[in-house]
Amino acid sequence: MTTPPQWVRDLKPSGPQGSELLAHERSKSSVNVDQLSTFLFTSEGLARKRRVLKVLENEKVFDKSQNYFAGRVDRFETALARAKRLRQLAVRNGWSNDDRLIANELISEPGPYGLHESMFLITLRDQGNAEQHEKFLKPAEQYKYIGCYAQTELGHGSNVRGLETTATWNKEDQTFTIHSPYLTASKWWIGSLGRTANHAVVMAQLIIGGKSYGPHPFVVQIRDLNTHETLENIHVGDIGPKFGYNTMDNGYLLFNQVKVPHISMLARFSRVDPKTNQYVRPASASLIYGTLTWVRSTIVMQAGGVLARGVTIATRYCAVRRQFQDRDAQEGQKSENQVINYTTVQIRLLPLLATTFALHFTGKAMMEMYGANQKKMSQDVGKVGGPERGAGPEETHSGSDLLADLHATSCGLKSLASYTAVEGLEMCRRACGGHGYSSFSGIGPWYADYLPTATWEGDNYMLTQQVARYLLKSARSVLKGNEPTNDTTFILTNFLSRQDTGAAFDVLGNDADIVAAFAWRSAFLTFEALKHRDEQKRPWNSLLVDFYRLSRAHSQYMVVKNFYETLQASPSATGLDAETLAIMHKLFRLYSLHTLESEASEFYTSSAVTVRQIQLCRTNAVMRLLEEIRPHAVRLVDAWSFPDWQLDSSLGRYDGKVYEDMFYRASELNPLNKVVVDPYPDSKVLFKKNEAAALKSKL
Amino acid sequence: MTTPPQWVRDLKPSGPQGSELLAHERSKSSVNVDQLSTFLFTSEGLARKRRVLKVLENEKVFDKSQNYFAGRVDRFETALARAKRLRQLAVRNGWSNDDRLIANELISEPGPYGLHESMFLITLRDQGNAEQHEKFLKPAEQYKYIGCYAQTELGHGSNVRGLETTATWNKEDQTFTIHSPYLTASKWWIGSLGRTANHAVVMAQLIIGGKSYGPHPFVVQIRDLNTHETLENIHVGDIGPKFGYNTMDNGYLLFNQVKVPHISMLARFSRVDPKTNQYVRPASASLIYGTLTWVRSTIVMQAGGVLARGVTIATRYCAVRRQFQDRDAQEGQKSENQVINYTTVQIRLLPLLATTFALHFTGKAMMEMYGANQKKMSQDVGKVGGPERGAGPEETHSGSDLLADLHATSCGLKSLASYTAVEGLEMCRRACGGHGYSSFSGIGPWYADYLPTATWEGDNYMLTQQVARYLLKSARSVLKGNEPTNDTTFILTNFLSRQDTGAAFDVLGNDADIVAAFAWRSAFLTFEALKHRDEQKRPWNSLLVDFYRLSRAHSQYMVVKNFYETLQASPSATGLDAETLAIMHKLFRLYSLHTLESEASEFYTSSAVTVRQIQLCRTNAVMRLLEEIRPHAVRLVDAWSFPDWQLDSSLGRYDGKVYEDMFYRASELNPLNKVVVDPYPDSKVLFKKNEAAALKSKL
Repeated sequence: MTTPPQWVRDLKPSGPQGSELLAHERSKSSVNVDQLSTFLFTSEGLARKRRVLKVLENEKVFDKSQNYFAGRVDRFETALARAKRLRQLAVRNGWSNDDRLIANELISEPGPYGLHESMFLITLRDQGNAEQHEKFLKPAEQYKYIGCYAQTELGHGSNVRGLETTATWNKEDQTFTIHSPYLTASKWWIGSLGRTANHAVVMAQLIIGGKSYGPHPFVVQIRDLNTHETLENIHVGDIGPKFGYNTMDNGYLLFNQVKVPHISMLARFSRVDPKTNQYVRPASASLIYGTLTWVRSTIVMQAGGVLARGVTIATRYCAVRRQFQDRDAQEGQKSENQVINYTTVQIRLLPLLATTFALHFTGKAMMEMYGANQKKMSQDVGKVGGPERGAGPEETHSGSDLLADLHATSCGLKSLASYTAVEGLEMCRRACGGHGYSSFSGIGPWYADYLPTATWEGDNYMLTQQVARYLLKSARSVLKGNEPTNDTTFILTNFLSRQDTGAAFDVLGNDADIVAAFAWRSAFLTFEALKHRDEQKRPWNSLLVDFYRLSRAHSQYMVVKNFYETLQASPSATGLDAETLAIMHKLFRLYSLHTLESEASEFYTSSAVTVRQIQLCRTNAVMRLLEEIRPHAVRLVDAWSFPDWQLDSSLGRYDGKVYEDMFYRASELNPLNKVVVDPYPDSKVLFKKNEAAALKSKL
Repeated sequence: MTTPPQWVRDLKPSGPQGSELLAHERSKSSVNVDQLSTFLFTSEGLARKRRVLKVLENEKVFDKSQNYFAGRVDRFETALARAKRLRQLAVRNGWSNDDRLIANELISEPGPYGLHESMFLITLRDQGNAEQHEKFLKPAEQYKYIGCYAQTELGHGSNVRGLETTATWNKEDQTFTIHSPYLTASKWWIGSLGRTANHAVVMAQLIIGGKSYGPHPFVVQIRDLNTHETLENIHVGDIGPKFGYNTMDNGYLLFNQVKVPHISMLARFSRVDPKTNQYVRPASASLIYGTLTWVRSTIVMQAGGVLARGVTIATRYCAVRRQFQDRDAQEGQKSENQVINYTTVQIRLLPLLATTFALHFTGKAMMEMYGANQKKMSQDVGKVGGPERGAGPEETHSGSDLLADLHATSCGLKSLASYTAVEGLEMCRRACGGHGYSSFSGIGPWYADYLPTATWEGDNYMLTQQVARYLLKSARSVLKGNEPTNDTTFILTNFLSRQDTGAAFDVLGNDADIVAAFAWRSAFLTFEALKHRDEQKRPWNSLLVDFYRLSRAHSQYMVVKNFYETLQASPSATGLDAETLAIMHKLFRLYSLHTLESEASEFYTSSAVTVRQIQLCRTNAVMRLLEEIRPHAVRLVDAWSFPDWQLDSSLGRYDGKVYEDMFYRASELNPLNKVVVDPYPDSKVLFKKNEAAALKSKL
């Protein structure tokens, strides 16, 4: 910390202060922030957040003031210290899983225990048998074993079946040999592996008697439990710096003929019988399928909140920042205009504000659908099968319609929701103008950490094939005359029955018609794709672009439908007063109509709406909604109730003290200001003084 | 450097090697890479690049191997060492300005001399008088004075007229007092200021006798020439970490009543007469206007090459990476498919490949237009005026049509070209799948450094108002019956004359008709906007979104037109053989038709094309062009002739040794692998060993 001279400390920002501007924004809107927060998160959720925040704020190790300055090695070191302390706090305070999750949200950085606490424990629990629970899960839960989930390889990501690591069964001594035959077999991107883990669940091709049985999970110790040095014939390390996620030690891992005992293969579903040396097939793949669907569902669930951080920051800053006068302003009114008053800013920010709610309600609906399915599945186990991650055969979608619908929904919405959050965050960052580029905006680092969500758990392009496959299958069923059994077959049936009479959706006058228009477009594109595939026999590869568009259209329909249905709940169920509810209805229309006009050509080629309606939608409806929602923008982002501690943003401060905070961080916290350079080209000296280094070496 | 064990060093990637795959790609295309490179860069340009590269490669200080690992302070230190060395090399080798520019391109990182060597020297040269050249420019050219250009403030970016720093004329002692009355008056974002500069050109509101005369440039010394410590009553420092650009010391700067002599105000155009204490007005603002237009033109010129780096990396990697089999493949052909064969990859990469050429040719045309205008302007000085940066009165666009057209063109194309490059780079990064997220992809860091181009030299949204204003003015002129004097008024006149007979552009059959369709859409949107403003008297603010779309449409027309016209040159002028030229024509069509279908609704609402044409364009023309261009993709990116040294990318290596290089960087160069952690939550030790720190403290 350096302190500027007194004359600098006496300076204030010019003009109306940020705090005054935000206070004014809040005073002129009647949106009930508390009601809306409670509707979004429940009062228990809000209380939990406050309680956990209080604990974290009082721990020095969680202090964020150097986060944006530190280099990779230092950031990782701090993240490790935080992970350890968090575990201690969880034990001491008896935190529930929800408490732990909210703590991670508040800290907002990936940590070295990340994969241990998620995929490692989950996989041991779900795929281990009782003996393996005792041997592996118990020490893992006590943090004696610290693990990771090693699936992706240098040469294979999406295509799990193409993994190259092998696990060969040795009947002589009843062991498996884990081996990396190629450089491309190196495990890669594995979170918590680079420096932290001493164990790994390794996905490897099971080979028995020269025959391959596909990828299976093996628990392998990789580092010494005392020295933490790498074990023999194992090569492991951190994969290096990334666009974000640099507090995490994503790692690589190679094996040179490493023997592990029979118990290492997680055997709840499939196993090798050591007596017969035979492979025992799993009864059902549907539970694995369930886990993957769950992971995607949580991504959908989180996307609204992820985006809302950026929208909160940008909205508050654009209400504080003033630039230029309004061109049509009268003389005498020539004070500078709040940036949020410009329609080019509104057209970017306010539809995104609407999107945060749209995604949040969709995520909630998705989780409820998942819960309902889990219930049903526990009755159905053994009866159904489902496609695996990445790819599955086109026509073999057997099992209940609910299950298939859930799978397709989770794929399509994961793709749309994470794409929308990624694009939206970057749009928020740019809406902050030049200062958006500073790390102190808080958007850039958050965006960079979130970005891989668009690629992992199914690449956002790859996944759309799953949606298209499901829709084609549903359309075939409907064409055969089968009765609709779920919403998807219902909208397809409805489209077919009305195809010849045509649609006449009053999208500008009636909210239910908006939902119907989105359904119509989705159904239209489904039957178009079916024609290309089944009648014209076009190659699958030539249809991928159409499939991507189809998945997007169908997913947007689901978002619009979920947003609409959430607002149809009884007033007592939402707990919202009439004014707040009315604004939510406007946000629904803004999200829907803005999406409709952005995707205009699919809507009119499907004849869901006319060209005239789209023009009116663009020039009238959307522009009017921007004007109507504008006064409530600050209160609406307040309802997301992010503490300043979580946002860690100069621009997004609740109190509007934007410039004071930017200046404080730059001038008092910035280690680069502790060096004095020699700037002349002919001098070999670079730093005349380096107090930062001096300080560090003293520690 | 750490060396992995022998068994690791013996490993090779599986399957066909990257080098084999790229060799195969190159063998099956007949595109003449040398001819195309020469057409793009001239043989002198290519020779210059090779010559300068040889010098840089032999200097240890330019070694890039730790670039992606180092933290902020270290990166800045290295960048300073490089800047110094580069200056020494330039002197020793007698480098021209072009040599210096290509060296910067090859090094590819912003450096601490960046603003000294551009805006500081340019401003002294262009805005200083002879006496000031002697006093300031001479020592600056000798790097005794090292400077920066301090315009933007904490509270004001785009709106230059709103700057808060003051320069008050003191008639008693014929000095100016430079002062920062508010915290928001702090200069901010100023490149080379944070640690490096000892002088600044400070833009400040000139005040004489209590009256303000607007922003003017003052040369102010800020640090001691020997100790490099900050001078009294000045507060200066680095503004902290950013999304990218972290090798540059962007700075802040505050003044507490600092007196500077009369000569400090750059006086070539306007000045204070020390005898009369009167302000002497500039004869013309058009030369300043010229500089800003030049800066924007260079952004347009560079955008193609900026994007081409990402496209080169992604194209090569997608030809090396293989994932999944083709779904329709016959048994026996089930080897994995190169990722570039998937249409979802092609639809992202190949239109971007076409875009690199489209932008490059547009940039060249823009620079030629600038040159022609400079010639004309040197004859016209004194006769013309023009709008200043950011804003200008709506109706006062006087002066030659060429000048006005140049200004609007540079604004519109700067906005479109930098937006396109930014979005395209990120699309390339994602097309690389998971590995795109690694810094070793080379795209992420490049993207992060380029990103501010979308904001500086006129925010990409703000600038579009300038284009719209110009188009509205041109349309008014045409409506009055004035004869067309340039291309813009020509296409507007043509639209009016054919408006009642309608358009019938054969966009799928005739290249000239594609250009005409883009012109038609631009003219249609111009007259629509004019109707809203002049007939319906709608507020300017309510039309900003339409203006943004209009500017985009008009700029896309110019890109299409420039691409088309470049290919109309005689074969001897292009130097391309028939096969290579034929591929270039296909790239023209791909860029144009892909843009047309992406912006479909504006094309059919303007009746430039029919809905049926757009459908055909989407399902037939674009998909067929992807197929036809696909075999030539690798050779086409080769023609951009980026040396590996410049790309610094594992994924984009010319030889295709993608996986070897990823692994090498992670396992042998990565300093995080020099620490051994204690991973257990209850231990207070974080790093059991820290060889990285040990190594560093020894140095």
